[in-house]
Amino acid sequence: MQSEQALRALDAHYQAMPPVAAMQLRIAGYDGDALTLEAPLALHVNDKGCAFGGSLVSLLTLASWGLVSLHVQAARLDADVFVADSEVRYLAPLFADLRAQARIAEGESWERFVAALRERGRARTTLVATVPLPDGGVATTCRARYVAIARKRG
Amino acid sequence: MQSEQALRALDAHYQAMPPVAAMQLRIAGYDGDALTLEAPLALHVNDKGCAFGGSLVSLLTLASWGLVSLHVQAARLDADVFVADSEVRYLAPLFADLRAQARIAEGESWERFVAALRERGRARTTLVATVPLPDGGVATTCRARYVAIARKRG
Repeated sequence: MQSEQALRALDAHYQAMPPVAAMQLRIAGYDGDALTLEAPLALHVNDKGCAFGGSLVSLLTLASWGLVSLHVQAARLDADVFVADSEVRYLAPLFADLRAQARIAEGESWERFVAALRERGRARTTLVATVPLPDGGVATTCRARYVAIARKRG
Repeated sequence: MQSEQALRALDAHYQAMPPVAAMQLRIAGYDGDALTLEAPLALHVNDKGCAFGGSLVSLLTLASWGLVSLHVQAARLDADVFVADSEVRYLAPLFADLRAQARIAEGESWERFVAALRERGRARTTLVATVPLPDGGVATTCRARYVAIARKRG
């Protein structure tokens, strides 16, 4: 299946980055719209026994970055994907394993994003990602803009 | 010296958090206004050979969090310090060791922050932190609000 292959490639991409490999994250799900990552709390605990803010942002950023990368790849394009800016709100402490789910922001479109990348070699879109609390609330939210720039073939 | 003791305590606090210990950060300087942290690029490199966004935010967050903690401690208060929200701009890729410097935002005051914490057991302030480029430009900026909540003595 193309999608499973794409997720294996994404996981390999994650694990090839030393700070990401150290996070022990895993891809927990992808349904075409939302990409979900997980990481164990034990490795990401702060001085208060809950999830460290830096780990939360890292996981949120990686979920969004991965989702953009999956859409670039699904369109059979080759591009570097960068985060441009992000707004994070830490709403409640998380005393459970970390889980981050990313999707495209309302009003944005993967079709427009892919068309721009194909035509101009550069595209930008906004993603939203959240870390849920085990009881159904939200621990952390992130709204971030990502830029894809077509790679020149060597 | 009180300040050196405080920096040693802050470093111990950092190193006691597993995700922070894994970053191999070190306190590079503190002059009462600005706290500077450093971490080696080799451990924080992404798929493009430059600093991983999650590592940059982590270092920026820890520098600001550390600066708030130093001011809480200097006032001989005991409080938990939380990040409430943050805005990060990734302006340029960084192909060198990571360095983050935090200070209080313009218009904010440590005196007011400490007075509020002492009187109401709770205080909030805004910090700005930046990651410089080796040539003098700026790689990443972060503006974040921090909350301190007095700890009840057990």
